[in-house]
Amino acid sequence: MKPPLSKIGEKMIEKTGVRAVMSDIQEVLAGGERSYINLSAGNPMILPGVSAMWKSALADLLDDDRFSSVIGQYGSSYGTDELIASVVRFFSERYSAGIRKENVLITAGSQQLFFLAINSFCGMGSGSVMKKALIPMLPDYSGYSGAALEREMIEGIPPLISKLDDHTFRYELDRKGFLERMRIGAVLLSRPNNPCGNILPKEDVAFISDACREANVPLFIDSAYAPPFPAIHFIDMEPIFNEQIIHCMSLSKAGLPGERIGIAIGPSRYIQAMEAFQSNAAIHSSRLGQYMAASVLNDGRLADVSLNEVRPYYRNKFMLLKETLLCKMPEDIKWYLHQGEGSLFGWLWFEDLPVTDAALYEYMKADGVIIVPGSSFFHRQSRRLAHSHQCIRISLTAADEDIIRGIDVLAKIAKGVYEKQVEYL
Amino acid sequence: MKPPLSKIGEKMIEKTGVRAVMSDIQEVLAGGERSYINLSAGNPMILPGVSAMWKSALADLLDDDRFSSVIGQYGSSYGTDELIASVVRFFSERYSAGIRKENVLITAGSQQLFFLAINSFCGMGSGSVMKKALIPMLPDYSGYSGAALEREMIEGIPPLISKLDDHTFRYELDRKGFLERMRIGAVLLSRPNNPCGNILPKEDVAFISDACREANVPLFIDSAYAPPFPAIHFIDMEPIFNEQIIHCMSLSKAGLPGERIGIAIGPSRYIQAMEAFQSNAAIHSSRLGQYMAASVLNDGRLADVSLNEVRPYYRNKFMLLKETLLCKMPEDIKWYLHQGEGSLFGWLWFEDLPVTDAALYEYMKADGVIIVPGSSFFHRQSRRLAHSHQCIRISLTAADEDIIRGIDVLAKIAKGVYEKQVEYL
Repeated sequence: MKPPLSKIGEKMIEKTGVRAVMSDIQEVLAGGERSYINLSAGNPMILPGVSAMWKSALADLLDDDRFSSVIGQYGSSYGTDELIASVVRFFSERYSAGIRKENVLITAGSQQLFFLAINSFCGMGSGSVMKKALIPMLPDYSGYSGAALEREMIEGIPPLISKLDDHTFRYELDRKGFLERMRIGAVLLSRPNNPCGNILPKEDVAFISDACREANVPLFIDSAYAPPFPAIHFIDMEPIFNEQIIHCMSLSKAGLPGERIGIAIGPSRYIQAMEAFQSNAAIHSSRLGQYMAASVLNDGRLADVSLNEVRPYYRNKFMLLKETLLCKMPEDIKWYLHQGEGSLFGWLWFEDLPVTDAALYEYMKADGVIIVPGSSFFHRQSRRLAHSHQCIRISLTAADEDIIRGIDVLAKIAKGVYEKQVEYL
Repeated sequence: MKPPLSKIGEKMIEKTGVRAVMSDIQEVLAGGERSYINLSAGNPMILPGVSAMWKSALADLLDDDRFSSVIGQYGSSYGTDELIASVVRFFSERYSAGIRKENVLITAGSQQLFFLAINSFCGMGSGSVMKKALIPMLPDYSGYSGAALEREMIEGIPPLISKLDDHTFRYELDRKGFLERMRIGAVLLSRPNNPCGNILPKEDVAFISDACREANVPLFIDSAYAPPFPAIHFIDMEPIFNEQIIHCMSLSKAGLPGERIGIAIGPSRYIQAMEAFQSNAAIHSSRLGQYMAASVLNDGRLADVSLNEVRPYYRNKFMLLKETLLCKMPEDIKWYLHQGEGSLFGWLWFEDLPVTDAALYEYMKADGVIIVPGSSFFHRQSRRLAHSHQCIRISLTAADEDIIRGIDVLAKIAKGVYEKQVEYL
């Protein structure tokens, strides 16, 4: 018997979008009866140099007099003094930004960071007006919809689609569409973007930031893949700091997803509200993880390992994916890979695809390959766009041979689907 | 300039009750100009055997092949397979309870656990009815009010007051008062209780549980001080498991507050809703902490160290507090210490106190001793009761000499206040 839930409880138990897909994928992979090629993983690859760095940071703690107080005491909801000081020093030196301790908040991971951010500033306001969280350019991280405590809070602007060559495309910001929807509580933007890897040009970020300043709302830039860590950007980019932007970082893609450490840097007026919420909802993040993070920030290893091990790994995988697609995909199919700008995914668009992305997912699964259908990343009503059902996300964390074999299967299925060979339908 | 917040954001930024007091206390203690005797601490004492246990669990991980995957992978929002299996085994063996893995949820600390619990089941419901979270016997943990996302969600029943001897009292459940307020979403009960240390008799728990079954709502028992760990109970008690109860545990008072590990054991229909919420709000708890917890549960050390080191420490402190009060407090004042049944606090009631608890806090602070005024633990409208302004909470984590010196000051101030010596008023 299902227990009676509150409205919030009902919202949070919904398994929609990518949560439903991921749940299906988990079941499939846990089945154990056959082996699958998994091109869906959001789990970052465990890289030896990265793992060794974290291990040595943890080993240092065992010899540190502070061990007992690190594990044995509650801490501030802003984060530990040590990690906050490390963040201030590191970012001030690197970016000459005027960052002070009141601009920094350590959260229990970046999902929690966005949970605090979205629900502090968006949702029903005191005048009973629903203030949306606006995504300036779809597709974007599907977890934002999950983190919203009320329905209808997340809204996004469909992108402009630009073909760069026969098999490469890129999304561009629809500036006009964005400005039309500015009755909002906050703007959310992942850069590099999950799922498509787009890095929005800094001119577009400035445009969005200006609109946010005018509307007096914060701009949260989800930097889970950005420099200075994990630095999974394949084109030039820099983090942006100003009086409207909260730069939101994670250590998960630099090898520490298990410890749940998120870092927000931004104007103190926004940071304070999120700290109060965190204090009530979770007290603070893991202090072991915070100790480890401060240690590898201070000695520069986190930035080094990101540049020299994490980034090359994913860039090479992306190159492999691109070359394999060019080599294996049938000539006469209109497929386009989103330009590889960063993150740990490839994003494929099949123009005029005769079936849905969900069907493509099922066909692939039946042939032993797991990918992620793309429509979940379009959030709510934008899923009505035909384009939103023509894309899939491919993880770059798989072994080379798995990427090659997976693309073999994809090529065969795509051919069948476009040629309407009903054995696939 | 304050940024516009959502209703939820406005609720979460409120610094009311004990959060306001704790914030004042932090400022006072951080001032550094004079030294205070701190009898307010909620931070557990760092005990050498406890700290050594956690250190060795962490050291084992460094030699474990699983290290990389523990820190380097996301995990299930239910918790790691290892810790869930340890919990199932440990509790099944010890209590012969039919616990299976679907009855267990690991959360990012017990504050997060109550955040998930309160907001999943209480608050505005689909019929636009506000479903309260009911505390059957005030006073109780003030953090429940903080964790509620909407105002007016937490409601509590004033206790019956029973004098046991000249200087000892005890709160008793008002069963009739409790039944009158059963239009609710959930019941919350801390046992042993923070602030007063009351352990509600199992007959009363059964009475409450029966009413919850009838109303089809969960009963959350906050076991932050309960056996089997940290086992800070000074009278006999056992955890209770049935089809209505979620037994909610923490490792914070067994020496691991820094890692944020909460454990819920209960009916899967409730566990599922909380897991979905956790997945959206925070993904999962620290995996280093979960690894450490599984290790000390499996080898029995957590239960041993709780019984043999944690419990005696706080029991001795309580005895010292009681003896010091009996020896130092003026004869003619009507003071009563709540019977010492468990937790890490003493709770003092001054009958007919001529000033408020807040004033008493200020006088003590002016004389260099920090205590916690009691009214915050009465939640909302129950603060109108005269009794709710006649109590203070004293932490048992202080050194012996600090407790003795702090009670010296309290005795002097109490005497002055009752005799209306205006230099204190």
